[in-house]
Amino acid sequence: MSETPDSVVRTYIENHRAAFLDDLVEWLRIPSVSAQPEHATDVRRSADWLAAKLKETGFPTAEVWETPGAPTVFAEWPSANADAPTVLVYGHHDVQPAALADGWDSEPFEPVIRGNRLHARGAADDKGQVFFHTLGVRAHLAATGRTTPAVHLKMLIEGEEESGSPHFRALVEEHAERLAADAVVVSDTGMWAEDTPTVCTGMRGLAECEIHLHGPDQDIHSGSFGGAVPNPATEIARLVAALHDEHARVAIPGFYDGIAELTDRERELLAELPFDEERWLRTARSTATHGEAGHTTLERVWARPTAEVNGIGGGYQGAGSKTIIPSSAMVKLSFRLVAGQDPEHIRKAVTAWAAERIPAGVRHEITFSGSTRPCLTPLDHPALRSLVRAMGRAFQQPVRHTREGGSGPAADLQEVLDAPVLFLGISVPSDGWHAPNEKVELDLLLKGVETSAYLWGELARGPGEAH
Amino acid sequence: MSETPDSVVRTYIENHRAAFLDDLVEWLRIPSVSAQPEHATDVRRSADWLAAKLKETGFPTAEVWETPGAPTVFAEWPSANADAPTVLVYGHHDVQPAALADGWDSEPFEPVIRGNRLHARGAADDKGQVFFHTLGVRAHLAATGRTTPAVHLKMLIEGEEESGSPHFRALVEEHAERLAADAVVVSDTGMWAEDTPTVCTGMRGLAECEIHLHGPDQDIHSGSFGGAVPNPATEIARLVAALHDEHARVAIPGFYDGIAELTDRERELLAELPFDEERWLRTARSTATHGEAGHTTLERVWARPTAEVNGIGGGYQGAGSKTIIPSSAMVKLSFRLVAGQDPEHIRKAVTAWAAERIPAGVRHEITFSGSTRPCLTPLDHPALRSLVRAMGRAFQQPVRHTREGGSGPAADLQEVLDAPVLFLGISVPSDGWHAPNEKVELDLLLKGVETSAYLWGELARGPGEAH
Repeated sequence: MSETPDSVVRTYIENHRAAFLDDLVEWLRIPSVSAQPEHATDVRRSADWLAAKLKETGFPTAEVWETPGAPTVFAEWPSANADAPTVLVYGHHDVQPAALADGWDSEPFEPVIRGNRLHARGAADDKGQVFFHTLGVRAHLAATGRTTPAVHLKMLIEGEEESGSPHFRALVEEHAERLAADAVVVSDTGMWAEDTPTVCTGMRGLAECEIHLHGPDQDIHSGSFGGAVPNPATEIARLVAALHDEHARVAIPGFYDGIAELTDRERELLAELPFDEERWLRTARSTATHGEAGHTTLERVWARPTAEVNGIGGGYQGAGSKTIIPSSAMVKLSFRLVAGQDPEHIRKAVTAWAAERIPAGVRHEITFSGSTRPCLTPLDHPALRSLVRAMGRAFQQPVRHTREGGSGPAADLQEVLDAPVLFLGISVPSDGWHAPNEKVELDLLLKGVETSAYLWGELARGPGEAH
Repeated sequence: MSETPDSVVRTYIENHRAAFLDDLVEWLRIPSVSAQPEHATDVRRSADWLAAKLKETGFPTAEVWETPGAPTVFAEWPSANADAPTVLVYGHHDVQPAALADGWDSEPFEPVIRGNRLHARGAADDKGQVFFHTLGVRAHLAATGRTTPAVHLKMLIEGEEESGSPHFRALVEEHAERLAADAVVVSDTGMWAEDTPTVCTGMRGLAECEIHLHGPDQDIHSGSFGGAVPNPATEIARLVAALHDEHARVAIPGFYDGIAELTDRERELLAELPFDEERWLRTARSTATHGEAGHTTLERVWARPTAEVNGIGGGYQGAGSKTIIPSSAMVKLSFRLVAGQDPEHIRKAVTAWAAERIPAGVRHEITFSGSTRPCLTPLDHPALRSLVRAMGRAFQQPVRHTREGGSGPAADLQEVLDAPVLFLGISVPSDGWHAPNEKVELDLLLKGVETSAYLWGELARGPGEAH
């Protein structure tokens, strides 16, 4: 058999696999937790490390961009073909908090390969998925005999995604000219399952807030005063209980204003997926589903907005008992948003709703942290079809369509750069994003490399039949 | 003017005041926190200290009684008059947890006198109120020329009251013969205000529980799974929100079964008190009242049962955000009970209510800690009238009637010993029981000494007009 370009790509990847993994492990050792101020220098180290690595990969330009928060990495590799389209790859180099005590089997920042899995905080979310593009572009050059990519390639890898990307939009607006692109490739999502390659067509947005209630100006005796003054711990619970109605719909007035309902075509595409509730529940580490009436589990996690409690606290939580009415209580809430919902509108709706529900005698404070817009890509966009072809070549299987329940700043890129967003992700639900023992499947990581290797040629070629 | 017995008592107290306070300060330095295992040896030191001090006071017998938990002190001083009635004084030597970081102006176990107030954890609850009896009985002897008290005097000072007295009832049952008494004097309550001496006629009971909910078997990503599985933090909030109906009545089925409603005479006695809501709110460190519809504030805190949250917690409570659905959440609840309510019935009602409300996919655990029965003394009992006379002599004012919202094991004594319970307390609401900067008013502490000095003669004399 004659050697095809795809087999050249595969051989190249196989030959460079070990060095690629060594580099990724080195990066994963840097605990770039953006939410924890004590890790600020680690986030900076992570940015510096990546910029140096991208230069080593061949990008003529690789810069660390400052923000009022954590730094972003920008790299650029122009094509020798001046007429080639421009593609911007988005990812992030910061990670969620992690500690051995949370239930990890090994230190979260000491990467370890067990079987065919690489375990570390950030292995899948998102360092592994950013990093597969480095070997991908080298394989693309090796297979095509080029010295520059088939597209003008740019990478934008931010450092505050896990903190809600508070400065990302301003950064994109500031650098809109250098970031200009015909398509954005977001590598910060997953696919259906190890044996079911999929492309994602949308992400949910996110609005987060923290509400503090203050009652008595110090803890008071629950015998002397119990039953006659408001208890902020009881009131925070009432507020949370009022988040949903009896159909598990969010009960905040105005919450559903303007949302895009699923089309019939989208429902059909979702129905093509081999959904197994028992298996899904195992991935969710849960024993029963629960959610908005009138919607399937997949619709609930991908195409419906939510209100979830991420943390709640107040009063005495230590051993034994303390018969007090606590002075204060708090809750951390996050709202996932779908296309048509605007985080600013949600902020106003939640603020008004909370203010109305707090009784006399309780003072409240509500603060919102960075929000993320929802994002949705047209199913028939040519660039989306290019991605489907590239992925089909890598996986040698039909590629299905999904959405993503998580959130990323893709919508800001789409809006500011006026470019379609493609989601290229190879993570699977069992990877444990934000959870203990996060991992990436090594076989899928290398399929990510391979898809990246094909994608630049597919995008340069434009609409057409699969290779 | 000829010297009356009352002025002898006053002079005696004045002459011994300094040594009395020195001793009390020494006792308050012992951090006898029964709820915290690391203070177990301090609770024992406290018991040993008190037993030694009671012997020094003149009690021929002073013993430390072991329990499966913290030790209790028992002392006995028989009257030379074999026909005298027997009176048992109850108090406790353990205290609530306290730490400077909770908002104290000085170390809670370094007693300090500021103005006319002695600040320390336990100053009012309950070491100060136990200790006034030591100088009281000495003043009684000095004023009457006796060498033994006018009554057979017993003291029972337990070490686990702040932990819900888990072993108290068994201890009383075991030693019922040695504890036998014609009346029980409980010195673990307060009076209306510094200028309004009162006797308390009842205490609320207490049932405490902790409920833990378990959802996903680890924290999971709120983007990937949010909206489609139960969230234990949301569910714990719903459970708390369901504790009360829209009239702020406890909504647990069976909760109000059998409770004694207030009589007209009791309402009249409550109406005699100079209740000022603004002033009460300042004491409660609160800015508005809130409670069961159809009841006044005093009825709510004294004569109505409650359900209060003492602590709630689940998920991420640190700085910044963490977009998870938490694996678990918990709440600590306490229920204040009134006459007619049985803690065991409440335990069953709460257990059934909680079990019914937990949705599929959430596992729950509910554990109850020691409970305390409610207690109520007949208004016309001769011993109660003796107490009112003794207090009237000390305060030289009319004595009003109150109840106490807090809880103590008085009902167990009443039930096992078949004796009426009298409440002799001089603490005022601003004393800050269970709160930072707990204090006792020195003037009132000495009125407690004086009331104790008169009480033994009044009880020996039996029914009659005031001296």
